[in-house]
Amino acid sequence: MDRMRAPFIVFEGADGVGKSTQAARLATRLETMGAPTLLTREPGGAPGAERLRALLVAGEADAWSPVAEALMMYAARAEHLRATINPARESGKIVICDRFSDSTRAYQGAAGAVSSDFIDALDCEVVSADGPTLTIVLDLDEAAAAARVSGRGTGPGAGETRFESKGLEFQRAVRAAFRKIAADAPATHMLVDASASAYVIEEEIAARVDPLIAAWRESDG
Amino acid sequence: MDRMRAPFIVFEGADGVGKSTQAARLATRLETMGAPTLLTREPGGAPGAERLRALLVAGEADAWSPVAEALMMYAARAEHLRATINPARESGKIVICDRFSDSTRAYQGAAGAVSSDFIDALDCEVVSADGPTLTIVLDLDEAAAAARVSGRGTGPGAGETRFESKGLEFQRAVRAAFRKIAADAPATHMLVDASASAYVIEEEIAARVDPLIAAWRESDG
Repeated sequence: MDRMRAPFIVFEGADGVGKSTQAARLATRLETMGAPTLLTREPGGAPGAERLRALLVAGEADAWSPVAEALMMYAARAEHLRATINPARESGKIVICDRFSDSTRAYQGAAGAVSSDFIDALDCEVVSADGPTLTIVLDLDEAAAAARVSGRGTGPGAGETRFESKGLEFQRAVRAAFRKIAADAPATHMLVDASASAYVIEEEIAARVDPLIAAWRESDG
Repeated sequence: MDRMRAPFIVFEGADGVGKSTQAARLATRLETMGAPTLLTREPGGAPGAERLRALLVAGEADAWSPVAEALMMYAARAEHLRATINPARESGKIVICDRFSDSTRAYQGAAGAVSSDFIDALDCEVVSADGPTLTIVLDLDEAAAAARVSGRGTGPGAGETRFESKGLEFQRAVRAAFRKIAADAPATHMLVDASASAYVIEEEIAARVDPLIAAWRESDG
């Protein structure tokens, strides 16, 4: 029997909800438990995908139409899966990713008006059976999220303000889309209240992730 | 009644068949006849599309998977239509373009194994009713085309050898795909023997293009 691929866990949600923080905490936790883990993010995570990220985050907020953005996101995703995610999972590494397909559905789809049928067609061609084992959607009031984003001075993501410059109305549409995505697929998605402390959120995520890791390790033994 | 948009004429075919030469000759001819003309090419033709072109033509021949290439081609095409082709046609300029959707069908589809259903879905979303009025497919034996390509020293396209480095077998598949595309849609496509002299080819093309231009000008009067 084929060895079961390692789990693929995605963090989703609007800007400022704490995705990067929780992704890093989970990665540290799994490594401490002795589970080799790869922490990555989208758009990016592979050489070609990082070049596309540079085009997407540079320049004006409306430099690309939402359809062009969706196509570039999926081109980057194809490279990310091919060069990084799939090989890591095959080699037994748990993959934790900051953003994936649901971000395209929320930003270019619900908030950008690209049809969900078209995004489904892209996802079917590019991702297919290589999608996430579990997606954790962090949910936070858009005003609170905006305040957290404006507090970012330096570090990763600083200066990449393209998506954040679109205003509260846009962020509200993005948040509603993520909530709906999580509600519609509870078997693969977990909605988490991101207004709690980072520690409380980490524990809530661990309660769902730990059994999933245990099941994979047993199947692997 | 709405004014009829100006015609959109595309040149297609493998590398080395003489697309750029014939596109430039037709543009000069139409300008001489007093018809304002925009000469453009793919991938590229708009600021965002040129940035994607730079990613696609740089680096190794297998830097991107065929699916990622197809997605980037259509992202570039969306920008090309939005920023360049559609506005020119609305303002009464005939658009002549070196390569368009059929190149994605031939290179990433037939020769690269991306499914034609998926390329149809991309074309339906991105191009829809904004596609070419006429596509001229230049057809030449792949060995003769390869000889012409290897004779190129400098000038536009020199150094952009990514697609040309894939060998005769690949070029054969590309040629067969273009021939089939033209044969399947004679109402919108014209197959031209590109082994004739440039002058003879130009005259053959003029015989098909001139009535199309005349019909548009009459509708516009």
